[in-house]
Amino acid sequence: MPTPAELPGLLAAARGDRPCDLVLRDAQLVNVASGEIQATDIAIRDRYVVGIGRGYRAREEVDLEHAFVAPGFIDAHVHVESAMVPPSEFARLVVPRGVTAAVTDPHEIANVAGIEGIRFMLADARRSALAMYVNASSCVPATDLGTAGARLEARDLAPLLSEPEVLGLAEVMNYPGAVNADPGVLSKLAAFHGRPIDGHCPALTGHGLNAYVAAGIESDHECTRVEEAREKLRLGMTLFLREATNARNLAALLPLVTPSTERRICLCTDDRVVPDLVEEGSIDHLVRRTIAAGVDPVVAIRMATINVAERFRIADRGMVAPGRIADLAIFRDLEAPRAERVYAAGRLVARDGAMVTPRTPGAAAFTDTVRIDWAKVSLAIPARGRRVRAIGAIPDQLITEHLTVDAKVEGGCAVAEPARDVLKMAVIERHFRSGRVGLGFVKGVGLRGGAIAGTVAHDHHNLVVIGADDRSMLAAARAVAGAGGGLAAASGDDVLALLPLPIAGLMSDRPYEEVGEGLKACLAAAGKLGSKLKDPFMAMSFLALEVIPALKLTDKGLVDVEKFAPVPLFAE
Amino acid sequence: MPTPAELPGLLAAARGDRPCDLVLRDAQLVNVASGEIQATDIAIRDRYVVGIGRGYRAREEVDLEHAFVAPGFIDAHVHVESAMVPPSEFARLVVPRGVTAAVTDPHEIANVAGIEGIRFMLADARRSALAMYVNASSCVPATDLGTAGARLEARDLAPLLSEPEVLGLAEVMNYPGAVNADPGVLSKLAAFHGRPIDGHCPALTGHGLNAYVAAGIESDHECTRVEEAREKLRLGMTLFLREATNARNLAALLPLVTPSTERRICLCTDDRVVPDLVEEGSIDHLVRRTIAAGVDPVVAIRMATINVAERFRIADRGMVAPGRIADLAIFRDLEAPRAERVYAAGRLVARDGAMVTPRTPGAAAFTDTVRIDWAKVSLAIPARGRRVRAIGAIPDQLITEHLTVDAKVEGGCAVAEPARDVLKMAVIERHFRSGRVGLGFVKGVGLRGGAIAGTVAHDHHNLVVIGADDRSMLAAARAVAGAGGGLAAASGDDVLALLPLPIAGLMSDRPYEEVGEGLKACLAAAGKLGSKLKDPFMAMSFLALEVIPALKLTDKGLVDVEKFAPVPLFAE
Repeated sequence: MPTPAELPGLLAAARGDRPCDLVLRDAQLVNVASGEIQATDIAIRDRYVVGIGRGYRAREEVDLEHAFVAPGFIDAHVHVESAMVPPSEFARLVVPRGVTAAVTDPHEIANVAGIEGIRFMLADARRSALAMYVNASSCVPATDLGTAGARLEARDLAPLLSEPEVLGLAEVMNYPGAVNADPGVLSKLAAFHGRPIDGHCPALTGHGLNAYVAAGIESDHECTRVEEAREKLRLGMTLFLREATNARNLAALLPLVTPSTERRICLCTDDRVVPDLVEEGSIDHLVRRTIAAGVDPVVAIRMATINVAERFRIADRGMVAPGRIADLAIFRDLEAPRAERVYAAGRLVARDGAMVTPRTPGAAAFTDTVRIDWAKVSLAIPARGRRVRAIGAIPDQLITEHLTVDAKVEGGCAVAEPARDVLKMAVIERHFRSGRVGLGFVKGVGLRGGAIAGTVAHDHHNLVVIGADDRSMLAAARAVAGAGGGLAAASGDDVLALLPLPIAGLMSDRPYEEVGEGLKACLAAAGKLGSKLKDPFMAMSFLALEVIPALKLTDKGLVDVEKFAPVPLFAE
Repeated sequence: MPTPAELPGLLAAARGDRPCDLVLRDAQLVNVASGEIQATDIAIRDRYVVGIGRGYRAREEVDLEHAFVAPGFIDAHVHVESAMVPPSEFARLVVPRGVTAAVTDPHEIANVAGIEGIRFMLADARRSALAMYVNASSCVPATDLGTAGARLEARDLAPLLSEPEVLGLAEVMNYPGAVNADPGVLSKLAAFHGRPIDGHCPALTGHGLNAYVAAGIESDHECTRVEEAREKLRLGMTLFLREATNARNLAALLPLVTPSTERRICLCTDDRVVPDLVEEGSIDHLVRRTIAAGVDPVVAIRMATINVAERFRIADRGMVAPGRIADLAIFRDLEAPRAERVYAAGRLVARDGAMVTPRTPGAAAFTDTVRIDWAKVSLAIPARGRRVRAIGAIPDQLITEHLTVDAKVEGGCAVAEPARDVLKMAVIERHFRSGRVGLGFVKGVGLRGGAIAGTVAHDHHNLVVIGADDRSMLAAARAVAGAGGGLAAASGDDVLALLPLPIAGLMSDRPYEEVGEGLKACLAAAGKLGSKLKDPFMAMSFLALEVIPALKLTDKGLVDVEKFAPVPLFAE
């Protein structure tokens, strides 16, 4: 809300005793407070809406000619890093689409660069038109079965509370820890007592779910079925319906939205890559999908505005009303809102899908996070048995199969056998130059030759590489490392494509347009190498995530996630 | 929410790993989160709900046999003092009706005893089963046209924020001050920046209302018409629908309640006297009225529970869910909820309309607040003209008429003329022994003889007396003063009825049953003296309130409220 020093001027404008800065005439206001479309003018002074109604004068007057005006959309939960650009560039992607605020969890960069990574995200966002709120990352590292670049305990997270954009605690992914009163988890909950605390508890139900909620965890964005979501709603959780690049749950959950339930339901994107953001959109895409599925447009827009603001106790956003920050999305078609103009904090920032201001690149940071002593690195797997475990990748799913296959042995070592779609996978520790490499095999990626590599590898973000032969694998991996992180495809010594992600090995310092092209080039190269997956880089990044069943690989080796324990590569 | 120290035990109970304290079996839960009736069990440990669902074990199990269970009702705005009993006794009145929490504004006692008066209310409430929240009184005194016992500036109010029950700032009645950026009002708004700030802006509209909302004021309970309420709702205000003893707005406003609007509408009682609380009820009465008017029962109950908790950001009440305090109202008839059992913080506190625990009287406090030096007090009105102004009381309204009548003069003094219903009125300053007396005349009260007096006189709470002759007036006034405050009726030297209100001159230290009987005795005596008003004492208490038009009397004399200025008694 306005500060005390700002109030006298704002009140004078609201009373009509002095002109405003801007009046939007003849608007059809999507009034998310009263739940109706209201024909009115909207008066703005400085960063704030000061008046709704007729009779205001201003230095600048804009005739909206009956266009609809909604509060700027707010993404209820998103990891900016998944777009592979920093917040200021992410803003260029989403703000022109009417997404003027986002509640983010910077846990990707936090796993690489700790609290300083989070502070970088905050500082970079402040340069942009996006109001980027942050929830402190609660699960860094995700487990001790892999090596992350940082470890954040309650005492590390608590100082973030003095940052004005920090709301509360981000998704408590360690739900077994919360349910079972793990002291480290409880310390984090205690540090954020009274603040919003987000959850992440896929398929948790019954008594366990009651305990998770009793711990003070208030939301979930991992539901996949209506019945799962209804149980959580009944226990008082706020639900975020998600439509990510790799987890598309919106359509399945929309039947839950009724006049009785809508107030406790929000929309979120979680993880979206640049091509999806460009071609489909961000929260605006979810709003259109929601309306197309038959939900009243005012309700759909509430799920992207006031509901999010209420869930996070953001007092000055989420509705167009006196004293609230003037974040506005203006559009013509209520059934399929696409922003023609976007105002952020009272200023016109985007028109017809593009920012009106030039891009101002920020200083690259954390460009030295891919720290590998190649002399220590070996991808060789001495044969110690005849059968090996293999990760079975499943298209469009984060879960994998736990397979066992015959080992192909050459020169005393187990090697890839692309003809049977058995590829070698390596996770090279890249934070501390330990030379530690986790080695294994994977089926389902489909490369017939060459290799792909990347430093995006949830959540520890070590250097992960999958390939048909060690030479290609090393070429891809070294190309990525040489760029300070990124994605690459190689065949033999030839690097076929490279998307540098020099910021923490996760994000580019280039315009998102280049990032999109670079990603497409990498995907094309992987396709030429034989992969049939839609996005083998993203699939690879989750083959290293040791908290999702069944078999995963980290720098410490194979993990049987169902047993939550390391498991040897050789099965017999 | 539970404290960190409480969590491990609560989580173990929620998981089902240890028995709970209490399980309520076979409940029909009014699930205000999901907006439905849910057949379930409810498990409780310590003060908290820990589980919703089947399969919990407990030391005590109660079969509810399909009874409905709602979250305890929360009054969104109430002045406890209007019931003429302190909070612990007020709790005995309302808790058995299912009202387990209330957001209160202790501005009556604050006008007498300042911050210490507010602290008394907090301390007294802590002895009770009622969760009494406090909003800091923003308008003490109401104006400088009368003499209150205290003056509270922002620096006086701010220390209250360290009290756990203090939520924010109470109704900003000085709406001209807020709209026009009065520095004193802005200082108070600044002191409570980020906290809930309640409003009070009867009939404010248009640009003025926009300014009031832009100042950060978030609610209103003074609407009388749907269109007024709709304008406020559209500007983002939360509406409290009020059904007080003397201001009954609920029925007129219920047409505003729709599935789109209900989330931002709450119920409040504001001011209710004991007989109304006993015979009609508190918030439970409003819930029944709301349902009887055709509103869905779950929606009506939301307006008394989750909506209030959300408006005031009370995280641990307002719904029956894990981790929330176990305040429960249990009833059989969903169409007319009347609590059969009430649980507060997990304990059974009331059954069949009465507390299960004995009354534990508190220490009386502020018993020396009626400070009058009778030697200085004179009720004589030397005749200085032939025509006098007279306050025209209007039945069931707080506004008055500004009349002029012929003066009856005897012995050089203007005197009452009961035959023409012209009575004398005096407001005797009672805080500082100044001897100051405001004198005037009133029509419409109807006493044919005798006098009535009281120390309840909004908001300054001086000793107000109305009578047919000075002897009766002095007898009534001195009876009240002798009791340390209260209400009385007298005829000549005979005191016909006396209700002592020794706590600040506003509240009794006796059981509410005695207070109700005492009030009825005073009303009966006033009726015998000729008054036709339903409650001439309450009418009298508002004839002294110098912020409601048109003509009022304070200890400083007559006030022309429309001009907001003193005005002489003699008109010519």
